[in-house]
This record gives sequence, C-alpha cells and structure tokens, in this order.
Amino acid sequence: MRIDLRETAGILKDSDNILLLCHAHPDGDTLGSATALARALSAMGKKVKVDCADPIPKDFSFMFEGLEQADFEPELIAAVDVADIKLLGREYEGVYQGRIQLCIDHHGSNMLYADKVWLDSDSASAAEMMYLLLKELGAEITPKIASCLFTGVSTDTGCFRFSNTTVRTFEIAAELAKLGADTYNIIQVFFETKTKTYAALERLALDSMRFYFSDRCALICVTQDMYKKSGSDESETDRLANLPRQVEGVLVGVTMRELKDGNFKASVRTHGDIDASEICKRLGGGGHIGAAGCTLYGTKQQAIKSLLKEVQAELDAFVID
Amino acid sequence: MRIDLRETAGILKDSDNILLLCHAHPDGDTLGSATALARALSAMGKKVKVDCADPIPKDFSFMFEGLEQADFEPELIAAVDVADIKLLGREYEGVYQGRIQLCIDHHGSNMLYADKVWLDSDSASAAEMMYLLLKELGAEITPKIASCLFTGVSTDTGCFRFSNTTVRTFEIAAELAKLGADTYNIIQVFFETKTKTYAALERLALDSMRFYFSDRCALICVTQDMYKKSGSDESETDRLANLPRQVEGVLVGVTMRELKDGNFKASVRTHGDIDASEICKRLGGGGHIGAAGCTLYGTKQQAIKSLLKEVQAELDAFVID
Repeated sequence: MRIDLRETAGILKDSDNILLLCHAHPDGDTLGSATALARALSAMGKKVKVDCADPIPKDFSFMFEGLEQADFEPELIAAVDVADIKLLGREYEGVYQGRIQLCIDHHGSNMLYADKVWLDSDSASAAEMMYLLLKELGAEITPKIASCLFTGVSTDTGCFRFSNTTVRTFEIAAELAKLGADTYNIIQVFFETKTKTYAALERLALDSMRFYFSDRCALICVTQDMYKKSGSDESETDRLANLPRQVEGVLVGVTMRELKDGNFKASVRTHGDIDASEICKRLGGGGHIGAAGCTLYGTKQQAIKSLLKEVQAELDAFVID
Repeated sequence: MRIDLRETAGILKDSDNILLLCHAHPDGDTLGSATALARALSAMGKKVKVDCADPIPKDFSFMFEGLEQADFEPELIAAVDVADIKLLGREYEGVYQGRIQLCIDHHGSNMLYADKVWLDSDSASAAEMMYLLLKELGAEITPKIASCLFTGVSTDTGCFRFSNTTVRTFEIAAELAKLGADTYNIIQVFFETKTKTYAALERLALDSMRFYFSDRCALICVTQDMYKKSGSDESETDRLANLPRQVEGVLVGVTMRELKDGNFKASVRTHGDIDASEICKRLGGGGHIGAAGCTLYGTKQQAIKSLLKEVQAELDAFVID
C-alpha cells in the first residue's frame, strides 16, 4: 500500500524498536538516509539499529560514529532506498522476505514489496525525503545528521550535476549547509579525491573507451587485468560510471566491469529522454531513467553485444523531433 | 577607496551611461556578473555596454542574447571581477588606465586600481556579490539574469566543490534555481560535457602527471605537441587545472600549458592552508588562496624548476601541527 509523508511519520512515531535496512553494496544515499533517521529516532527515545548485508566502506564510517546500535526484537522493519528486496543482498533477502513493513524510497522501479511504501520518484535521493520526514517528525537536525543527509543528497545527484537535481535539491542542500553539514569535506571525499590507484585505473578505463551508433554510445570496459595493473579494485569502479556519458554527443554511456566469476556488471547512464532503466530492465536489471544497472553473463564480447543490442533498441525508439 | 554594497548600488543608480569591463580570457564569472548587471541596469532605463578585450567563447554567448549593447560616451566605467587593470588585456589596459571609476571584485589580490572598489574576498564569485547588488538595486531577477549569475556561481566554485563554497553560495544557488536559472544545462555545458578532442587531451595530460615532494605536489604539463595530437587547443586547457589536486595526498596541483611562443602558463590549485597565490605572486602572478596562476619563461625544464622551487618554499612554510 502506498502511503505519504505524514503516514510514514505516524508509523515511526508509533513504533519503538525499529530496524532500518540498507541495500547491499551500500552507497551514500542508503547509508546517509538510514543513519540520519536512526539518529533522529534515537533522540526521540526509540531503540534503533541500522543494518546492511555488506560491510560499511570506510568513507561512510563517520555516519555511524556515536550512533548507538540497539539489540532487540524489531517491532518495525523498514527498508531505506531499497527498490527491490533482492537488493538487500541474497542472505538478507531470505531473512526478511515478507517481513518488511515499511519502505522509504525514491526509485520509480520500486517493486512495492513492503506492506507500506512511501515512494517519491521525483526525489533525487532518499536523503531529500528523509529531510522532509525529519521535519515532519519535529526532529532536531544536528550537524551530524545534516552531514549524513548531505552525503545522500550530493552523492545521488553526482554533486548536483545529474538531471534528477531540482530546485528542492538546491534548497535542501542550502538548508543542510546552514544546519552545519560538513559540505566541503564530504564533497572532497566523494568527488574531488582520487587514490593514486583509482587515478591509474581511470587512465586505463579511458583508454578502453569505444564509440558506437554514430558516437551516440560510448562504452568503457574495466577488466580484472586493469585492476591488477592499476592496483585498484571493484570498490573504486562506481566513480567511472559517469565518464562515458560526458563525451559530447554521447546519449548513452556504459561502464562495464568484469566480475571475479568472469561475468560483467554494467552501469548505464543516459541523457535526455533515453531511458537507462528500460535498457537494463530487458537485461534483468533496473534503476532510474538517467542511471541504471544490470548483470551480463558470458564472455566480454557476448556481454558487450547483448548490451549494445538493447542500447540500439532504445536509441531507435528515440526519434529527434 | 573601499566602498560597500549600498554605496556601490548608489553609484550605479546615479549613473546613466555605464560601461562594464570584463577581464581578458573571459570566464563564466566575469561575463555572467557583467551581463546580469547590464540586464538589470538596462531594465532600469540606463544605457549599458559590456566589453571585453577578447572574443566571447560560444558557451557564454547565451548571456548576450537580447542584451542591447548601447553606443555612448561612458559616464561610469566599472570593472567586474577584474583584480588588476593588467587583466583587462594589454590593449584595454592602455585605454582605461586611470579611468576605471568602480570595481566590483572578490579577489583578495585586487590591486585597488579603481577610484572606488567594492571588494568581498569572502565571496566565492563576483556573481554572488552581483546577486546581492541586484537585490539592493531592487532589480527583477529574470530567469535569464538568474542563468547568467548561476553560471558565475557554479563555474567559480568548480560546481560547489572548491573551498570557497560557503553556506551563502548554496543559498544563492537555491534562490537562482527557484528564479528560473537553467541550472541543469549550465552544469552540463561547463562540467559534464567534454568534446572528443578535450577527452583525448585529458588522457595525454593525465599520462604526463608527475609527482614531487613525497607526492605532495602533482604536476601536469600540456605541450603544443599534445594539442596537435588530440586536435584540441588552449581554450580547452582550463578544465584540466583541477585534475592534479584531486589525487589523494596532493596538496599542490599544478597544470602548465605551453604557449605558442614557447613560454608556459601555470595554474596552481592547493588544499587547506597552502597558499596558491603566494606561490604565483613570487613568479609575477596572483589569485586566491586555493587557486592562482602565473606565466613562466624559458624552456619546459626551466619553467618546471622555477615553479617547483616556489612550491617547495610554500610546502616548507606549512608545518603540520
């Protein structure tokens, strides 16, 4: 059942032992939103725990500093920024199947797997929704909470560069800055700092860039061999996803990375009306109109071929007026 | 004489034929600020002209659309975002020496060459000051004016990533977005679009990156040969300036580009308390604490050597507590 902001606040107010679940392969939005909400609920006297199937990357550890993680039998299980129960990770999916009572999410592709879902697909990030929710709850937004939320707001918009960025995004960013979010350091860590190994990987990745369909599609493919050569690893690949789309004239940018089992993960980024989630859905994945992902099976050539077929179908469907 | 916002507004209100001068090698801030002010003054019934010694790059041409450039004997000559009269360009420097009555600027290094100077070195951009000035003048901020200002606000902060970005920067960005600035397209053009030639130049530039002083300094050097190989040119070099500083641990990032006469222009970007303008001042240049520039004479090796000497002096002066 779809619910709104006020009903979501009501459910949280009426619950005491609250488990907040983040998606696996966690990012700034799922973690920033969940920890911000946890801190606010904790300050309201509730017992809260934030959980994720995967370890928390060190750049996000600041979000958990001083956050008391309670141990309890949950009265309310809520998923934050999780479009599909599968995205909790295989193990958690089994544990929580049919048990998620509340979902707060901004993905248009949300599978409505929870009993009650507050979904705002116009929101650039779950963190924007969380800001409104904390206001509705009358919670104090401390500098720490503001930093957690600013991380979600900035990372899910590519630091205000993606098409999901709205007037509200800028307004909430300004509010969070005023409330004491550590905007400069957050942006430095997530957007303006490259490890030397990442810088080396980026060079190899850029060298691998190939163009298709009259240069309307650019594709880079990161192989296990490139990880070896650069000293980098999978954890640093996310940031490459935006590079192919940046080339002038490119409407579909694809970043593929070879998994350890030899298969490939693809991140698709599009411009304008080209729907990345349509491309990925047909390959078993999903996401947003401008940013989506899927897993591709087979050799590198097969993986590229099957992806390009769907890219072409989407490009063909897009007729310039 | 230093004056404040209100006095600046008073001078503009009392003048009718106003010439606004931008710095040579014009950027989004000098042009965005000057055209925004020109549009507001024009709407107040004044005759205005925006002038620059160099041609207007095509990405900025939208700022001049529908802006009536009057022909007159100026009653008031004002420089916008121009720290030093030399930065008007050699020819204009000769013409306007001793004739600039008003200067609106945010560079701490401003030479106070104008009769009256409204200087706010805490402002990330001249465009932020211009936003306040238009408010003070009671001018309507049209969507077009908002777009001109947003261009200045975003380009001078590296899209909110540089340390000059403040709470006020975010607040003004949010206001401008609400007033109808075309934030998405502006950010796409200036931050998220690379020509194929620029992408090729960037790869060559990244390959040239070298590290000094225990990796606290990274330097890239763009040669005329690289322009030839990539099909790119000087106009696309500005965007490279931020790349060396992005590498983890680098405190001073330097981007040098070979001029056609064989000498070099250097852009210096620093982190934290390291003062880029100190480094560049000693070499005849100037700028801000985090971003400055200078011209270096001699061979590539000599240019690098003289620059690194000043980088080292500045690094040595910086003792970690």
